[in-house]
Amino acid sequence: MPYALYYWPTIQGRGEFVRLALEEAGVPYDDVARGPEPDGGVPAMLALIDGDSVPHPPFAPPFLRAGRLLIGQTATILLFLGDRHGLAPKTESGRLWVHQIQLTLADLVVEAHDTHHPIASSLYYEDQKPEAARRAESFRNERIPKFLGWCETVLERSGGPWLGGRRVTYADLSLFQAVEGLRFAFPKTMKRQERKSPRVVALRDAVAARPRIAAYLASERRIPFNQMGIFRHYPELDP
Amino acid sequence: MPYALYYWPTIQGRGEFVRLALEEAGVPYDDVARGPEPDGGVPAMLALIDGDSVPHPPFAPPFLRAGRLLIGQTATILLFLGDRHGLAPKTESGRLWVHQIQLTLADLVVEAHDTHHPIASSLYYEDQKPEAARRAESFRNERIPKFLGWCETVLERSGGPWLGGRRVTYADLSLFQAVEGLRFAFPKTMKRQERKSPRVVALRDAVAARPRIAAYLASERRIPFNQMGIFRHYPELDP
Repeated sequence: MPYALYYWPTIQGRGEFVRLALEEAGVPYDDVARGPEPDGGVPAMLALIDGDSVPHPPFAPPFLRAGRLLIGQTATILLFLGDRHGLAPKTESGRLWVHQIQLTLADLVVEAHDTHHPIASSLYYEDQKPEAARRAESFRNERIPKFLGWCETVLERSGGPWLGGRRVTYADLSLFQAVEGLRFAFPKTMKRQERKSPRVVALRDAVAARPRIAAYLASERRIPFNQMGIFRHYPELDP
Repeated sequence: MPYALYYWPTIQGRGEFVRLALEEAGVPYDDVARGPEPDGGVPAMLALIDGDSVPHPPFAPPFLRAGRLLIGQTATILLFLGDRHGLAPKTESGRLWVHQIQLTLADLVVEAHDTHHPIASSLYYEDQKPEAARRAESFRNERIPKFLGWCETVLERSGGPWLGGRRVTYADLSLFQAVEGLRFAFPKTMKRQERKSPRVVALRDAVAARPRIAAYLASERRIPFNQMGIFRHYPELDP
């Protein structure tokens, strides 16, 4: 296997943005923490975070091993994979622009997470429900429209069909995943929002229809959304 | 001027990470929103966010104009400046590692901001004080130790004196700024934490002593910390 991906085995989470890029690239990878111990499993992942001899210790999953490289932070992994597998433009201007889009989507993902964990990731949702209700209100009414409105503008100006123009990049895969996550977590809000975001919806559909992505989504490799991931559906947060 | 930086004129905020890199590089730049209208001021900045003809519209400040390039997202700007001005390693492995560190520091900055704005950036601190007290508690007790502990480990393994090893990079400037911000916002917590973070403190001092940085910090170009920025000092959040 050219690549080993390390991420929590039961959720899509941030690892999913990497999985989508690997799947679209069509390269084999070992999803290590989903494999059996001792070579796989969560202990194999944590050994690289906690190990004393890792020269570049990741702060948190996901991280990717590629030969001698051990790369953490979702957007850094995508920067690397984008260059290697034609999922990013070759020009400096294009590469930076796609990375800028990715980091903006990463900001959206943090905010989506914080709707159910506005106080502390170390606490349960049940321990921060009133705060979550307030944060989610702002996220639904202000932040989703702002983020998806910006994506719509980017697509309008790129000439389409992709965020960077005529060629698909890792940022497109990430926007697909963000839309899927928002649909799962905030279905009522998204039903209204999507009427104002036709280009975003078309991009989502175009990503889902790409042969390798479609095969992946239909496979057991795609973990379903659930109530442990970044995107969670609490009906009271999407009234 | 080779560069034009666009950021809010009265705060350090995220723009400060870019200013520090520009200052260390010793390149002239126009801090546009701090200049007089009509060429400067906040309207000149907002025109690039809201303008209909900007092909790569930034989502938010800071952003940097470099010739034809318009680059947003702090870490993307630093990726660009690091390559151009010797503030990043030349090897792929080194470049990715420094970027990974930068993105981890960016996560810390988001969490520092959210201690005083856990519910919504669009509300005043006074409208979210109980939530801020809870979030700050977790930030002080869990997150600051985790982030600075990780930085300490990175410095230990790099062989020092810098995060990436023997040469200073933009990530070092960013860690300096993060420490300065945390000291301003959480002086009591940091007094305790710094005893466990000798390498981080030494790096902070080494950055402050670099001639161009020292000159910058003593100049009027350095905006003092204040209660409008990302790092704010509310005594009740640092009891």
